[in-house]
Amino acid sequence: MAEQKKLVEAITPMEEDFAKWYTDVVKKAELADYSSVRGCMIIRPYGYAIWENIQHTLDGMFKATGHENVYMPLLIPESLLQKEKDHVEGFAPEVAWVTHGGSEALTERLCVRPTSETLFCEHYAHVIKSYRDLPKLYNQWCSVLRWEKTTRPFLRTMEFLWQEGHTMHETREEAVAETEQMLNVYADLCENYLAIPVLKGKKTDKEKFAGAESTYTIEAMMHDGKALQSGTSHFFGDGFARAFDIQYTGRDNKLAYPFQTSWGMSTRIIGAIIMTHGDDSGLVLPPRIAPTQLMIVPIAMHKGGVLEKAQELCQRLQKTFRVKLDASDNSPGWKFAEYEMKGVPLRLEIGPKDLEKNQCVLVRRDNREKTFVPLDQLEAEIARLLDAVHDGLYQRALQNRESRTWSATTMEEILALANGKNGFIKTMWCGDEACELAMKEQAGLTSRCMPFEQEHLGDVCPICGKPAKTMVVWGKAY
Amino acid sequence: MAEQKKLVEAITPMEEDFAKWYTDVVKKAELADYSSVRGCMIIRPYGYAIWENIQHTLDGMFKATGHENVYMPLLIPESLLQKEKDHVEGFAPEVAWVTHGGSEALTERLCVRPTSETLFCEHYAHVIKSYRDLPKLYNQWCSVLRWEKTTRPFLRTMEFLWQEGHTMHETREEAVAETEQMLNVYADLCENYLAIPVLKGKKTDKEKFAGAESTYTIEAMMHDGKALQSGTSHFFGDGFARAFDIQYTGRDNKLAYPFQTSWGMSTRIIGAIIMTHGDDSGLVLPPRIAPTQLMIVPIAMHKGGVLEKAQELCQRLQKTFRVKLDASDNSPGWKFAEYEMKGVPLRLEIGPKDLEKNQCVLVRRDNREKTFVPLDQLEAEIARLLDAVHDGLYQRALQNRESRTWSATTMEEILALANGKNGFIKTMWCGDEACELAMKEQAGLTSRCMPFEQEHLGDVCPICGKPAKTMVVWGKAY
Repeated sequence: MAEQKKLVEAITPMEEDFAKWYTDVVKKAELADYSSVRGCMIIRPYGYAIWENIQHTLDGMFKATGHENVYMPLLIPESLLQKEKDHVEGFAPEVAWVTHGGSEALTERLCVRPTSETLFCEHYAHVIKSYRDLPKLYNQWCSVLRWEKTTRPFLRTMEFLWQEGHTMHETREEAVAETEQMLNVYADLCENYLAIPVLKGKKTDKEKFAGAESTYTIEAMMHDGKALQSGTSHFFGDGFARAFDIQYTGRDNKLAYPFQTSWGMSTRIIGAIIMTHGDDSGLVLPPRIAPTQLMIVPIAMHKGGVLEKAQELCQRLQKTFRVKLDASDNSPGWKFAEYEMKGVPLRLEIGPKDLEKNQCVLVRRDNREKTFVPLDQLEAEIARLLDAVHDGLYQRALQNRESRTWSATTMEEILALANGKNGFIKTMWCGDEACELAMKEQAGLTSRCMPFEQEHLGDVCPICGKPAKTMVVWGKAY
Repeated sequence: MAEQKKLVEAITPMEEDFAKWYTDVVKKAELADYSSVRGCMIIRPYGYAIWENIQHTLDGMFKATGHENVYMPLLIPESLLQKEKDHVEGFAPEVAWVTHGGSEALTERLCVRPTSETLFCEHYAHVIKSYRDLPKLYNQWCSVLRWEKTTRPFLRTMEFLWQEGHTMHETREEAVAETEQMLNVYADLCENYLAIPVLKGKKTDKEKFAGAESTYTIEAMMHDGKALQSGTSHFFGDGFARAFDIQYTGRDNKLAYPFQTSWGMSTRIIGAIIMTHGDDSGLVLPPRIAPTQLMIVPIAMHKGGVLEKAQELCQRLQKTFRVKLDASDNSPGWKFAEYEMKGVPLRLEIGPKDLEKNQCVLVRRDNREKTFVPLDQLEAEIARLLDAVHDGLYQRALQNRESRTWSATTMEEILALANGKNGFIKTMWCGDEACELAMKEQAGLTSRCMPFEQEHLGDVCPICGKPAKTMVVWGKAY
């Protein structure tokens, strides 16, 4: 008889230390592990299965909107990285440099890609000759590396997995429409699959991507009120096209530069899932991307017929849902704690009494609500409850965001709100970077975005008193 | 009215220059492009779609055999790479070294992974504590980098995409069984999805993987008679486990070292597809992994009802097959040549006369056989023809291999066979590396494998005359 595993150790409560709660969950739910390379993590099977489900969903959305996948080299020659001035200024300080191949010193350093605009542009210069070659709608799934000083699993790692879309278009309007479309794809993923409400908007010039004309963003609010930039979409105008000499013969038979976009979402989004939905019992996974949607835990497993029934249900339900059965010798109590830690959205309990009544118990992870369900109605009830968990998670996250979103019209109000509390602060803004810097210095806040849904909160910038141009949402960010 | 694209340029005939034929196909079928990084290629949408189909098929097979995907870091500290002596000797000469992060010189060099045994072992040392933690059946999809001197698209590139499985087991027998199982998975993929017959066997010690106790391989024969190693599976014994101090408490409550395997297949396999099935009209794709299985080409497209019917068929057939319609203004002749170049397994032609008869024409890419098919029988006929193309390709490749496989019992016979002809030469072998070196020097041949299906061709090694231990297959290899 095998020894009983000890009960799952408790994790640090969120209210006590949110950062420690986060790393406890990452470790105890077996999402990631540290490696001997500073700042690089190992994504363990359970964490990777979440990424695979996100990847599968996003990739389907990309293909449905006409995009094709490609693969570009991992390494970028220094001279290529330098072709677009703003871009190299933004990225050169945070790249890793390959200087030797085998025992030979290289004549030109190669950086490990931090992002691949330069490689895509070089390729586009080869393959775009005529307006008939446009649009080019490419995407790539890969890992990128940025030499970060401080790192945290999923949220900020030197290496991370992501997808980067890179597209080229005949007209400015078409490229802007693509930038918006892909932001909407990201918002769709977050809201309808990850149960994370997001705020859509445009980044200020200070916060935009190196080399972009404009950057659109979706900003999510974590449980602790801090913001997480969850996906970005960039419009480049024809800046890179000019720098890389990408020209095509237009419909008017004249040479023209195409307009460009790029857009990316990374494994960082797993950090957003953890910090949006998790609780003091561990991870809470949104059902549509959970690797296991329902875990079957037999009660008094060795009593007549229980295990057999559990196995039969498992086989039956696997046809419709992602289902597992834990038939190990661990106690039901251990199993409850273990799959709560792992955030499995639903638990199915079945014991001798249930067998008699031809029923079982379904327990929701998010609110622990129990439902007794006749076995012949199981599929319909599971489908209903998975949707209910999704909706419940979304509503809870939305309420958290609403209760932590405030408007302010004076610096005093801003400072009072920002003092000790985290959340979104909406204010008007004059458009000057100096005021963003002042906001950072005085209130510790950065501009998250200029929301697409603008409100008129007043006529002046609360920082400098000059006429306001736009409404900005400020916050502390991961 | 748009201008007509010029007819697809001819490619170099295979018989004239097989190597040039190969690169012509890679370029004209738009599989890959060169980049400014020496030896690194860009995998274009059509090439990547082939890889996605292979990946999807293989990943399903891995999951069906209980494997889970993970992601390990891209970079390996020099000290970690050095932990297993044979392994570092094998790989250190061909790795790229990162020496700087941003503007800072690193205290320890990091290599870009050429393979990830060391990283998996480091992680396994963290997570394997008890026999209950075994087996560990992990796989990862990623890119790796090896500093190759001469490169060719897909066949040998500095960076390539692959999967690498890394598993740990309680017993030697279980690990050996895993090694064999995964070789069979690779053979299944090659034969039943890629229509490539493979020879299964064991590598000689000289040819085995750096650090492995034994390496199993599947060897395919290309159209020109050269061999291509298409997938390998390695048994490590407990060598790495000892080097990395991976120990677990066994069922007997004693500490023990687990037994290890690794196995990999890469984008190289796309080179095998090209060189096994291609012809002087371009690529020929096996139907089960072809991005487009059937291309619809309307004839006299602007005549009443033709385009509408083609569109209707496209929508209908897309429910069952991977189908596209080319409704561009290019001529049918141009389209025929274009999709032959791209190796689309079936072409569907439909014109005004077919409309009258409620039929269409299906043309096989492999042998250009035409079939007139009533429209109400299309699905069944397409399914039949896709299987027929698969079988036809497999048989043609098998015949090529059989006609180029010879036995030899003396060095004179070997030299006569190897002189100017490429193929597999079967001989007995004494087991000494000296004879392998002699074979390389005198006949230009390397040992491909010791086939699992052994034959007794004689009692002595034809190279040295000493008693023979085993039958070896020799060849020239890519």
